[in-house]
Amino acid sequence: MANSPSGDSVLDRLVRILGAFSAQHSALTVSALARRANVPRATAYRLVESMVSHGLLERRDNGEVAVGLGLWEIVNRSASANDLKTIAMPFMEDVNQVVQHSTQLSILVEDEVLVLERLSRPGHAVNAAGIAKRMPLHRTSMGMVLLAFSAPHVAEGFMQRHGTEIALYHQDFRRSLDHIRRNGYATFDGFIDEETTGAAAPILDNKNRALAAMGIVVPRESDQLPTAIAALRTAARGISRTLSNLPA
Amino acid sequence: MANSPSGDSVLDRLVRILGAFSAQHSALTVSALARRANVPRATAYRLVESMVSHGLLERRDNGEVAVGLGLWEIVNRSASANDLKTIAMPFMEDVNQVVQHSTQLSILVEDEVLVLERLSRPGHAVNAAGIAKRMPLHRTSMGMVLLAFSAPHVAEGFMQRHGTEIALYHQDFRRSLDHIRRNGYATFDGFIDEETTGAAAPILDNKNRALAAMGIVVPRESDQLPTAIAALRTAARGISRTLSNLPA
Repeated sequence: MANSPSGDSVLDRLVRILGAFSAQHSALTVSALARRANVPRATAYRLVESMVSHGLLERRDNGEVAVGLGLWEIVNRSASANDLKTIAMPFMEDVNQVVQHSTQLSILVEDEVLVLERLSRPGHAVNAAGIAKRMPLHRTSMGMVLLAFSAPHVAEGFMQRHGTEIALYHQDFRRSLDHIRRNGYATFDGFIDEETTGAAAPILDNKNRALAAMGIVVPRESDQLPTAIAALRTAARGISRTLSNLPA
Repeated sequence: MANSPSGDSVLDRLVRILGAFSAQHSALTVSALARRANVPRATAYRLVESMVSHGLLERRDNGEVAVGLGLWEIVNRSASANDLKTIAMPFMEDVNQVVQHSTQLSILVEDEVLVLERLSRPGHAVNAAGIAKRMPLHRTSMGMVLLAFSAPHVAEGFMQRHGTEIALYHQDFRRSLDHIRRNGYATFDGFIDEETTGAAAPILDNKNRALAAMGIVVPRESDQLPTAIAALRTAARGISRTLSNLPA
């Protein structure tokens, strides 16, 4: 692969350029993009031009560029995250209708919760979980469920890497995880918004390991938590069963 | 950009490799990928290796590769298609709850309908519109609405390019589009599945041009079509208004 004098390949630079966009910065000028991606400005202009002509980026009327619809289409047509989403979506809608609060689906990626899908109920409890957003494992009910139902080395590794941070929120983290494993679900009060409680249940494979977690956010002082958890656990089991019945 | 002897740049090959994946081929062996992407096999092995290490692709246990979660995350965190989806989703859920049939959101891209989002009702009417799928403009209610509410040159250009194909389905295409403009919605019987009827309404900008279309699929012989259309038009107007109230 062609390398620049700095040893950067085209792919290195392309990935840094794509990675420079975020929910807050979904459109950027090429100069801002060059800065955020740490790519020389002249190189950025050339590469952006080429990425626009290939549909990886698109140019807005104001001259800013954004992730292109062509790339959106390729990724959403075929990404493996979609298989899980497609199966989970009807079950998420069931919970959404029965409980009338936002539901979301997430997986564990690089010591964080990555939100794959979200069904929101505007006007209901505040919910920080946007699609493709990341959240801390040890501060969300989905993260706690993902850790509790992961292979033992996953939770142990996480504790080694984030012990100090965990101690701010948990007196006895291992015991909390045990508790969640016994109950089959997790609850967590006031992540980001103090007025809400999150609850989550695992979507399990046939070895009882979490493939994903399904979560819901309810107002903290409501009496809806028990019913929300019942709906959530029922739906999560439905997803697990549907996945296990798929041809390999 | 570094070109191969054939004049292909890294970016050309990368885009062809990503484009080789589809809903039916969401995971491929590197040989199959090389063939579908028209990239020499040795080059494909090298480029795939590099794309895997950057998270653009991911390797499955069986050795096949697929579009990577890293790329999924970048694209879904920031793509402009998400702005529209985020605003439309609560309205789509409203229609879904009131009408109890699948709803979808789409835009016009390169003479086709591109589906941005879909809420499905399993067990209800068959719906061919998957997320990021494309469908023919002149054979779907969403496509007809997108054309009817586009700038005049868009429909005329489409007619010039696809006249023969259009004639198979429409006696007087211009008159059909006029009719849809007057009514404010479109219906279309039996696209792919003969047992269903689709209905669609436009999401309009302040020049009365369609930014997107919202569609629903109901069983053909049901008496639900009038109520479905009423719900759909109401929700589409809500999305249009919400978009027009956004800060520029």
